[in-house]
Amino acid sequence: MNEKTINIGLIGFGTIGSGVIEIFNQNIDLIQEKVGKEIILKKVVDLDITTDRGVEISPEKLSTDIDEILEDPEISIVIELIGGYEPAFSFIIKALKNGKNVVTANKALLAKYWKEVISTAEKNNVRIAFEASVGGGIPLLQPLNESLAANNFNGIYGIINGTANYILSKMSEKELNLDDVLKEAQEKGYAEQDPTFDIEGHDTAQKLIILTILGFGTYLTQDKFHVEGITQITPLDIKFTSKNLGYVTKLLGISRKIDGELEVRVHPTLIPHNHLLASVNDVFNGVYLIGDAVGPVMMYGQGAGMMPTASAIMGDCIDIINNPNKKINYGPPKKIEERIKSMDDVVSKYYIRLNAIDQPGVLHNLSGILSNFNISLESVNQDKNEKNDAIPIFLVTHKAYEKDIRNAINEIDQLPQIQAPSTLIRILDE
Amino acid sequence: MNEKTINIGLIGFGTIGSGVIEIFNQNIDLIQEKVGKEIILKKVVDLDITTDRGVEISPEKLSTDIDEILEDPEISIVIELIGGYEPAFSFIIKALKNGKNVVTANKALLAKYWKEVISTAEKNNVRIAFEASVGGGIPLLQPLNESLAANNFNGIYGIINGTANYILSKMSEKELNLDDVLKEAQEKGYAEQDPTFDIEGHDTAQKLIILTILGFGTYLTQDKFHVEGITQITPLDIKFTSKNLGYVTKLLGISRKIDGELEVRVHPTLIPHNHLLASVNDVFNGVYLIGDAVGPVMMYGQGAGMMPTASAIMGDCIDIINNPNKKINYGPPKKIEERIKSMDDVVSKYYIRLNAIDQPGVLHNLSGILSNFNISLESVNQDKNEKNDAIPIFLVTHKAYEKDIRNAINEIDQLPQIQAPSTLIRILDE
Repeated sequence: MNEKTINIGLIGFGTIGSGVIEIFNQNIDLIQEKVGKEIILKKVVDLDITTDRGVEISPEKLSTDIDEILEDPEISIVIELIGGYEPAFSFIIKALKNGKNVVTANKALLAKYWKEVISTAEKNNVRIAFEASVGGGIPLLQPLNESLAANNFNGIYGIINGTANYILSKMSEKELNLDDVLKEAQEKGYAEQDPTFDIEGHDTAQKLIILTILGFGTYLTQDKFHVEGITQITPLDIKFTSKNLGYVTKLLGISRKIDGELEVRVHPTLIPHNHLLASVNDVFNGVYLIGDAVGPVMMYGQGAGMMPTASAIMGDCIDIINNPNKKINYGPPKKIEERIKSMDDVVSKYYIRLNAIDQPGVLHNLSGILSNFNISLESVNQDKNEKNDAIPIFLVTHKAYEKDIRNAINEIDQLPQIQAPSTLIRILDE
Repeated sequence: MNEKTINIGLIGFGTIGSGVIEIFNQNIDLIQEKVGKEIILKKVVDLDITTDRGVEISPEKLSTDIDEILEDPEISIVIELIGGYEPAFSFIIKALKNGKNVVTANKALLAKYWKEVISTAEKNNVRIAFEASVGGGIPLLQPLNESLAANNFNGIYGIINGTANYILSKMSEKELNLDDVLKEAQEKGYAEQDPTFDIEGHDTAQKLIILTILGFGTYLTQDKFHVEGITQITPLDIKFTSKNLGYVTKLLGISRKIDGELEVRVHPTLIPHNHLLASVNDVFNGVYLIGDAVGPVMMYGQGAGMMPTASAIMGDCIDIINNPNKKINYGPPKKIEERIKSMDDVVSKYYIRLNAIDQPGVLHNLSGILSNFNISLESVNQDKNEKNDAIPIFLVTHKAYEKDIRNAINEIDQLPQIQAPSTLIRILDE
């Protein structure tokens, strides 16, 4: 990039796009000093260019015509912020083929079209950068790829969905149920009107796919691993596990090597309260890595939002301008060929909450079933204070196989004394 | 760096040097794949090449002759791990002048000779890399310089000395005094036989100088700011502030912009227990940054030790091999010219422990003095359970000027009822 002036095109004038414009308006002097060039945001393209987004931009820079970016030979960096698969995918591929570097926050697209996007960038000798796609403004992918490049990673544990983390944090703090917190989160703009994607774990799964590539060189699609959201979690579970067992409930994406296999999963997880991940609260994100040389490392910050995400976008732009030919590895070049572990074969400690009628013999029945599946218990607690017909029984198991736990619960839930399906939460073991 | 084979020379066969050799032995295949070249650790130079360091290295690679590295035209990267000022400084300058890239963990040298080292590297068109100099293996300087480059930083708060943090953590956990914990730390290898450098804050100060350059573009020497260690901290202070006030005691390096000035200081600091920095325990380090776009970010990990530090050293080597001409900014190019704030003018909340005889009128006397200096109190507690003649009185002030606090304490310590010098700990306010 030898030009004295760098022209940037921005596709998508939504929240993050407005943040990018805001950084241009506020920090362009600093950024130009750092790259030693003039940087111009030449064009902003969106279907809607009339709504006031509350940021200053001269009207002649706005356009609804995508070709004003993709076909402009002066534009060398394209920022894609419309999200989703199409037309984002077509725009990115066309930009790359037209010799433009691309910066994106689009984790859904990267998780689905990883190979096409990366190979198109490589073929056309341009860069694709996506620090903003996981963990928003947190420096995460660059450290994984570069500062920590001398490590073989053993595990990556991420709280990487701010909406789910906010909901669990508030459920814990205020002893509210999910629906009530969700309503509040929607009012504050921390949750979408349709929150499925966040609270069912899909967003975490897409980000975990990217982390798994960078950490282990292994690309896998979401249907290849267990993804479970937070909708089954109740205030009772959060309160009991916190007060009596010393755990904090988090939606965790886990990717780790174990017994020569790669174990990838997304689900609510009980984290010991003195683990640093347990202190990642509200809308914040935290990713905890273990490298074979560096040991544990955690990166923490705002995983979403207008300005934090725009910070990562602009950091990528600066990096591309300063180092257009940077040699980058997306994870270990030799893919770690371990088999992806089946969820059945995952070994974990488990918290189980049963809903039983308070009759003699209940414990005897269920302990018999657990014993048949080789599951031993660390603790059993009954909450006699609950004034319902069915009382909760809280179990914590020693390490057991997932398939045994599931089979045991299926049998237990058939017992006549069991009044409602049992709740299962896995306990962090790293 | 177009050679197919990269030769590296290592100066210093101590703990970290052995870690570098260990990474070579364990992970060289991974690293060679990532750079697409053969990497050879060609020579290791130390005065002592006979002691067994417990790592495998062929004897012909060992030498006591520094010129076998500095004058070998095949060696393009020199790792300096002998520490201290001389001969490290001469070696680094000579290596740079001979066209070699340098990787170092030497924060003392960088803090003192920053300008000479950086300008020599720039003049000779080679790189100097020093991720390992602050925070050991934690990716910290690269994120500050690159991923977060679009931000103006408002503040940097670092727990960056593992020895001091280990001591304070154990004092808190076990209610022990500093000398007892220090002895244990020395036995475990977490503290030097002469621990002055760590526990008096000098090591933190040197690292803070580097962070201040990268965050604010401002170079300053240690005599320009307040540096205070942890030797005045007692278990009584830690226990009272934890149990009654909800604070955790940490040795903190602070560098921040405030009121158009740069405020740089190192001292024990009371951190609210729900602040993420409060969860950085034992030998771990954590650096909490606030950028104007990204908001708060924290990086956490092992700030010292053989393998974590070697991880950062090798990360720098990989980066140099992949991107020998990388354009790097060491902080904002236009130095932030704000005046360095005098410690007198620092505004903080303060915890003060007085040692007073339990007589009527004590509180009246001291409240009069505080009032004369415009200091108002948030809380006053006396511990009548202490079975000494002198009982501790614990004060927490509202925000006040440092000079007023110091003057007030000087007067208070002259009161006839005061039996011993008062203890003062600043409270984090970010």
